Amino acid sequence: MTKALVLQSDFGISDGAVSAMHGVAYSVSQELSIFDLTHDIPPFNIWEASYRLWQTMTYWKEGTVFVSVVDPGVGSTRKSVGVKTGSGHYVITPDNGTLTHIARTEGIEAIREIDESINRLPKSGESYTFHGRDIYAYTGARLASGIITFEGVGPELDPDSFVKLNVKEPVLENGKTVRGIIDILDIRFGNLWTNIPRTLFKQTAVEYGDTLDVRILHDGRELYHNAMTFGRSFADTHKGEPLVYINSLDNLGVAINQGSFAKAYDIRTGSNWEIVLEQK
Amino acid sequence: MTKALVLQSDFGISDGAVSAMHGVAYSVSQELSIFDLTHDIPPFNIWEASYRLWQTMTYWKEGTVFVSVVDPGVGSTRKSVGVKTGSGHYVITPDNGTLTHIARTEGIEAIREIDESINRLPKSGESYTFHGRDIYAYTGARLASGIITFEGVGPELDPDSFVKLNVKEPVLENGKTVRGIIDILDIRFGNLWTNIPRTLFKQTAVEYGDTLDVRILHDGRELYHNAMTFGRSFADTHKGEPLVYINSLDNLGVAINQGSFAKAYDIRTGSNWEIVLEQK
Amino acid sequence: MTKALVLQSDFGISDGAVSAMHGVAYSVSQELSIFDLTHDIPPFNIWEASYRLWQTMTYWKEGTVFVSVVDPGVGSTRKSVGVKTGSGHYVITPDNGTLTHIARTEGIEAIREIDESINRLPKSGESYTFHGRDIYAYTGARLASGIITFEGVGPELDPDSFVKLNVKEPVLENGKTVRGIIDILDIRFGNLWTNIPRTLFKQTAVEYGDTLDVRILHDGRELYHNAMTFGRSFADTHKGEPLVYINSLDNLGVAINQGSFAKAYDIRTGSNWEIVLEQK
Repeated sequence: MTKALVLQSDFGISDGAVSAMHGVAYSVSQELSIFDLTHDIPPFNIWEASYRLWQTMTYWKEGTVFVSVVDPGVGSTRKSVGVKTGSGHYVITPDNGTLTHIARTEGIEAIREIDESINRLPKSGESYTFHGRDIYAYTGARLASGIITFEGVGPELDPDSFVKLNVKEPVLENGKTVRGIIDILDIRFGNLWTNIPRTLFKQTAVEYGDTLDVRILHDGRELYHNAMTFGRSFADTHKGEPLVYINSLDNLGVAINQGSFAKAYDIRTGSNWEIVLEQK
Repeated sequence: MTKALVLQSDFGISDGAVSAMHGVAYSVSQELSIFDLTHDIPPFNIWEASYRLWQTMTYWKEGTVFVSVVDPGVGSTRKSVGVKTGSGHYVITPDNGTLTHIARTEGIEAIREIDESINRLPKSGESYTFHGRDIYAYTGARLASGIITFEGVGPELDPDSFVKLNVKEPVLENGKTVRGIIDILDIRFGNLWTNIPRTLFKQTAVEYGDTLDVRILHDGRELYHNAMTFGRSFADTHKGEPLVYINSLDNLGVAINQGSFAKAYDIRTGSNWEIVLEQK
Repeated sequence: MTKALVLQSDFGISDGAVSAMHGVAYSVSQELSIFDLTHDIPPFNIWEASYRLWQTMTYWKEGTVFVSVVDPGVGSTRKSVGVKTGSGHYVITPDNGTLTHIARTEGIEAIREIDESINRLPKSGESYTFHGRDIYAYTGARLASGIITFEGVGPELDPDSFVKLNVKEPVLENGKTVRGIIDILDIRFGNLWTNIPRTLFKQTAVEYGDTLDVRILHDGRELYHNAMTFGRSFADTHKGEPLVYINSLDNLGVAINQGSFAKAYDIRTGSNWEIVLEQK
């Protein structure tokens, strides 16, 4: 039985790149269910590619094959790999850090290096710049359709040998202060998504309705300092009011009800954007 | 036999939200045909969500299940409902006005409140902010795939009890003047789409090729006043010339041939944007 | 057996237009595999529509039906046609130049004018402005699903009678200078894609690693003049360095590694944007 094939890239959808990948996959097998995760990863942003895989993967059936192509090193010596995760999903990707988030939560069960002598689109000729079409979509479609097994991807590698991006862990201090980073934005609504899990936060005595003291620092410099309610959802606050809430990935989020927190205070993401929450 | 599932939201397609909904739906049934209406509804704009449903629904096969998630009240007491329309389509949506346009033209045959004790993604835990994934996509996929019948959505409600947005009706005055509002924009091309149906307009004596006197008012203040041809299509005018035409929803539209009327005169939409057309 | 249906337009994906086309196609046959090439062709840009078809078509299985709707002349006397290409693919399109690129590389085997008395959505009434939905998607879906054969599209036309856009051919001068145009942008990354094929360029003695003298002229006026490496891929240069490379369509491209060449020097596309490369 065929598996779903889910494609992600930083190619955008304004030209023909994504459609060429769809065409390659469909030509491999007309039985495949082909989906797009997003193609709007900011160019070369491996961190965000890694995050989006993690954000969505476990909502897909076991066995689903993800192809992720954010590949600033195309044509270099970076490896092309196929991975089986602890959750039973597959990822076809350049080995450049894209596996960072998934590896932390689901684990990597096995890695194989793509054998390009077999798993490369036959007519892909002398182009060295579009592995998304010529190698990744092609190999992903062959795996999802059952034309090759996972073993058929290529020779096995040490499952811990993949490239990991630097991750800063959240911490709980003296039972009432949590400290983490702004991991990513909920782009459309401008909400901040932190790397602080609900399970860590719940070790404080904070309950829904309580007020928190919230500080945001960029490179150690304080940019925001205010009191906020810890609410179940936006509906617990007035329009325009800020709140702390549990987001859809079970981490702490910070929002302005029907406004953009990120725009209001010009907040961005990464390990130099720290957030500190303290029970008042 | 499975039905098509068509998803709409204000989530954008730049992050993983839509893909998580796809994954939930596909996990419910691998036989489903999953489509996207649009995910580019402006954040919290219920009016536009209602309009886009109406714009597209009748071009889909009877029985098609639409999931529409523009949900500023997520987590509040607003109801989650499943609806059967007079045209034989289904809509899964928060009950917040999203049904306004469809109800006027197709009618609402039956409404049921979603029983979240059954129709909620099992592992969706303590998040109260992503009902699109945890309730609406899940329930829509179960209905479209035949796992539940319409009765299985939940307990029946009074079919006239749903939330309706305020609608201003177009009028014909002394047989030759029609008065309506700018209902929405044909975004990409900047054309104005009014709420004046061809059938009402045809009660005047205006014929293709006639000249009309057209006024646009914002809060009663005149912003535009000019003569225009009533044409069959853009090809009936020169490039850059304005015209009145019948749009693809059988209502009056106003355009500049190969230009953007909305940008040229900074026109927006809503019941305080009035348009008056008079035979010269 | 049904064929894939691949849709392209300049409609954008922010309103209901594309979904109405999907609905029409799905209503014709629930067995169809429906894909989108892109709907982000700049409004009325027939050249780019023609280019994107060419960029993707041969990556799709023989028999695939493409529907391309960039149609500034909707409602005029421009013809609506169905085409069989030399590569065995089909295109349903207004006859306005959209076939230019495909005709040059794959050839046009046969053209038929769409018979709208048969191949028009039954309920499409008095609207003369949305042939994408009422004629092209409908006819494309009927052809892809096998409801009509290619002969069923309508009466045959002279296969050389279609509208061709003006194309400027690349040239090789005294064995070491190649001269072409900036054909299109690799939008997302800002790379320039020329119309100079690798096969022409390889008639010079240039090899990977060599330095080239590159000039870009707009209407004959020099806007850029610099030396660049001819590299296999971006990885052959430092970040921020310009290079000449073979793009994924086997033509010469010009890029800045991880930067936007088009933005850096404000380069656009068309036959008045000339590029001259010379071996140093």
